[in-house]
Amino acid sequence: MTEPFVERLRRIQARKRSVLCVGLDPDPERMPPHLFADASPAEAVVAFATAVIAATQAAACAFKLNFAFFEALGAEGWRALETTLRRIPEGVLVVADAKRGDIGNSARFYARSAFERLGCDACTVAPYMGRDAVTPFLRYPGKAAFVLARTSNPGAADFQARDCGGEPLFLGVARRVAAWAETAPGDGGLVVGATDTTAMRALREACPALPFLIPGVGAQGGDARAVMRAAGSGPVLVNSSRQILYASPAEDFAEAAGRAAETLRRTLEEARA
Amino acid sequence: MTEPFVERLRRIQARKRSVLCVGLDPDPERMPPHLFADASPAEAVVAFATAVIAATQAAACAFKLNFAFFEALGAEGWRALETTLRRIPEGVLVVADAKRGDIGNSARFYARSAFERLGCDACTVAPYMGRDAVTPFLRYPGKAAFVLARTSNPGAADFQARDCGGEPLFLGVARRVAAWAETAPGDGGLVVGATDTTAMRALREACPALPFLIPGVGAQGGDARAVMRAAGSGPVLVNSSRQILYASPAEDFAEAAGRAAETLRRTLEEARA
Repeated sequence: MTEPFVERLRRIQARKRSVLCVGLDPDPERMPPHLFADASPAEAVVAFATAVIAATQAAACAFKLNFAFFEALGAEGWRALETTLRRIPEGVLVVADAKRGDIGNSARFYARSAFERLGCDACTVAPYMGRDAVTPFLRYPGKAAFVLARTSNPGAADFQARDCGGEPLFLGVARRVAAWAETAPGDGGLVVGATDTTAMRALREACPALPFLIPGVGAQGGDARAVMRAAGSGPVLVNSSRQILYASPAEDFAEAAGRAAETLRRTLEEARA
Repeated sequence: MTEPFVERLRRIQARKRSVLCVGLDPDPERMPPHLFADASPAEAVVAFATAVIAATQAAACAFKLNFAFFEALGAEGWRALETTLRRIPEGVLVVADAKRGDIGNSARFYARSAFERLGCDACTVAPYMGRDAVTPFLRYPGKAAFVLARTSNPGAADFQARDCGGEPLFLGVARRVAAWAETAPGDGGLVVGATDTTAMRALREACPALPFLIPGVGAQGGDARAVMRAAGSGPVLVNSSRQILYASPAEDFAEAAGRAAETLRRTLEEARA
């Protein structure tokens, strides 16, 4: 039997003493200039991501690849995404941060892309189109769909926080995801931004067992200790991207990323204790 | 000055007497088997799409490429997407049906991918993450962002139809998109499924000037005449994918697609009159 995603997450997190997910958002404008000396942008992205993976893998239980940064480079970017995935060692989880969401027929193809073609362990999914946009991502044993609930960005309140029948939309989304996941072969999860710990507490109360993928610690302003308190005792995966990737703008970027990742790993472990 | 998307749409539609958008959703399981004889799946997709484009371009004012079907083939699929885009002649519009939506920083990269890298004229965008997920797609003069409002799939009612402060969520989304687009260099638009003409009428009343991208005519059950009535006098782009692409499962697929497109074009023109 395939080990469920949440079990695998627990096992890896216990072994590595880490809930840290390192987010790979390779922005050519912020990457060290020397990487572009003899390389195409896509080659530079692979070199950058490879070095960051090697330097942070000891501190990370997972890597999250933000597809936007690869897609912006076209087919070469997509190839760079595939190459980068091959540089991630065994024993860590891989999240496809693709935020896909489409009608059932198309969603099946997006799920196939993330899980079968790319071999990722989890994928972020947008809920707006409802059940047939989400459930194709829940059909894979051992995999997980992290559905956007309360995100960490400034515009998150525009729709997610709207009152829908006595509760904010994000809570309604979370309850439906929990219900859909209950009978599905794969695991459901939620994207819950670090910037709104009130929302996080409400979501944890509503969904005690769902894993939370928590972006927004660091560059976006979330405080690690408050976040770990709000997330309670359920499973979490705390993502940091820019704070780690761009810890140094110079040739020592990888060492600096490694140190930043280890510092954040330790802060999160202390906050969890 | 760059011609606004909506003006270009009007001009092309008047010249071609067509509001028909042909949706390119190349599903290898439904494509004619002979295309795979001496070809990789990605090559077969390009051959299929190229033949459909050639056979339907006279009847179409636009083509819409559904990224899911290309992505499912990995980097070769992304290259097939780029090749297919080059096969689309001048004088028709191209919609990137990518349904992207992410925090501002990532959304900028998705917009760059659709508009700069791929050169598409419009992109579908998911609204759940709010303004900073949408507005990066509104920053391009001459381009348009079609934001999901009321979609045509079975799960659409799960969240879009929820009552949020006295009106369904999709109406609140539409009003915000209209407001954001008002001051933006690019044009806003809405995805409004053909399967719910009551919602479409309400959306047209709220947003008289926004272009509607209307999927769901044909395979998903929408009736052309009722749809054109509900869409009123504002700009529309009516998409059909499967009904055209898979009009014949055999070697005459392109001719059959051409006939199906021309029939639908004429039906839509009659309904508009």
